[in-house]
Amino acid sequence: MVEDYRTHPNLAKIKIVLVETSHPGNIGAVARAMKNMGLSQLVLVNPKEFPSQVASVRASGAADVLNDAQVVASLDDAIADCQVVVGASARMRKVSWPQLDVRQTAQLAMETVSADAQAQVAILFGREDSGLSNAEMDKCHYLAHIPTNPTYSSLNIAAAVQVFVYEFLMATDIKSVHQAEGYRHQLASAEQLEGFYDHLYQALQDIAFLDPSKNARFMRRMRRLFNRSQLDVKEIDILRGILTAAQRQSNQLKTLTQDRD
Amino acid sequence: MVEDYRTHPNLAKIKIVLVETSHPGNIGAVARAMKNMGLSQLVLVNPKEFPSQVASVRASGAADVLNDAQVVASLDDAIADCQVVVGASARMRKVSWPQLDVRQTAQLAMETVSADAQAQVAILFGREDSGLSNAEMDKCHYLAHIPTNPTYSSLNIAAAVQVFVYEFLMATDIKSVHQAEGYRHQLASAEQLEGFYDHLYQALQDIAFLDPSKNARFMRRMRRLFNRSQLDVKEIDILRGILTAAQRQSNQLKTLTQDRD
Repeated sequence: MVEDYRTHPNLAKIKIVLVETSHPGNIGAVARAMKNMGLSQLVLVNPKEFPSQVASVRASGAADVLNDAQVVASLDDAIADCQVVVGASARMRKVSWPQLDVRQTAQLAMETVSADAQAQVAILFGREDSGLSNAEMDKCHYLAHIPTNPTYSSLNIAAAVQVFVYEFLMATDIKSVHQAEGYRHQLASAEQLEGFYDHLYQALQDIAFLDPSKNARFMRRMRRLFNRSQLDVKEIDILRGILTAAQRQSNQLKTLTQDRD
Repeated sequence: MVEDYRTHPNLAKIKIVLVETSHPGNIGAVARAMKNMGLSQLVLVNPKEFPSQVASVRASGAADVLNDAQVVASLDDAIADCQVVVGASARMRKVSWPQLDVRQTAQLAMETVSADAQAQVAILFGREDSGLSNAEMDKCHYLAHIPTNPTYSSLNIAAAVQVFVYEFLMATDIKSVHQAEGYRHQLASAEQLEGFYDHLYQALQDIAFLDPSKNARFMRRMRRLFNRSQLDVKEIDILRGILTAAQRQSNQLKTLTQDRD
């Protein structure tokens, strides 16, 4: 984390994650846009070419952000310690996913990081040509789109990041509504959420609820529902406790049924 | 004026004026940013190199904006037909000038062009290295600055234009087109929610999870969790389906256990 320039502490909790960026010039321009708006955490998932002289030139005075960029091999590594994961994408009318515009995203992010001092928020930007894959979008709690001219909506990736980081800076005075309520535990990380979803998936099979042929769509629906509510670690514990109780009966039932055979 | 793509009529009344831009790549990136946000009027005052292949490449799908750009020899020619002239500049604390941020500028511009069908607004962007001269700022009715990290406030010119044109689009009613969400079913009524909570309470007892002495506090926690996510009617159906599946096993287990006694 870059600490050598003055910035709002909440901006330091926002990660900009670039997935398989092709052009190093774009990575440099993203670093510059980030530093201009006071952000410092840049994560590169499998960049095609990095480090790169072209990136450094485009970064201009943001060499520190570029030098401190974290390079990782998988998206999971990039977001494991993040409580809210947002995928930036062109608006898709047919995808049923919670969609936010940039201003709403910035508000959500600032509410999240001010509610929980440990919380971090990741904003994912996909490949220049093909964006994020479906599997990558499945890791997202929200999709965020930039309002655009409907007939020409494809922004350069650095321009897209510029709009997001500008809105983040504009939103820095937003406080969490939960802060006053003071009832929440630490928000669950993406890793803890995945653990819950795996457990749920298994438990739904154990209690003979889930039709495996419909799993992908069904689990996506469950993710949407629980991601919307921003589970905290205590709630994850409770929900998994309920699943375990249901599974315990399911095992007992299985044992008894086998006994009878 | 470019008319071949759908845009908000008020955006067509905003001129982006680039004064003595050095790098043709920046001109191309500005054209792209403008078209992305539905603007069409680009005016170049004494560009160093234009037309340019580099500009065309960076403009990507915004060749029409670039081709229709007006090249003029003086700033006066660029702004002669404009009612409001705003100079984009780094924030200058010692200059006594009406200063706006980008959002205020967009609001002012949209108010101006919707109040008067003939009105046009010019936003001036200076040279990459030295900005606008004092004589050029004297032609401005307002100065506008982009809020930034105070220790690194120098945006690339195309990035600066991107932030302005984004705010212009956000200030039109065009975004209302995007507002229809469409992915949610009808939100559950309070009565449907109560039905779900009753069902949950019973099922948690059936699967031997719930300690009755802690019911009130526990159920309050469950209510907070699910109320936060604003369940829709379809989600209520699914959640109750899961509860029913768990209860079915619980009943089978009870029957089998009684058989053995």
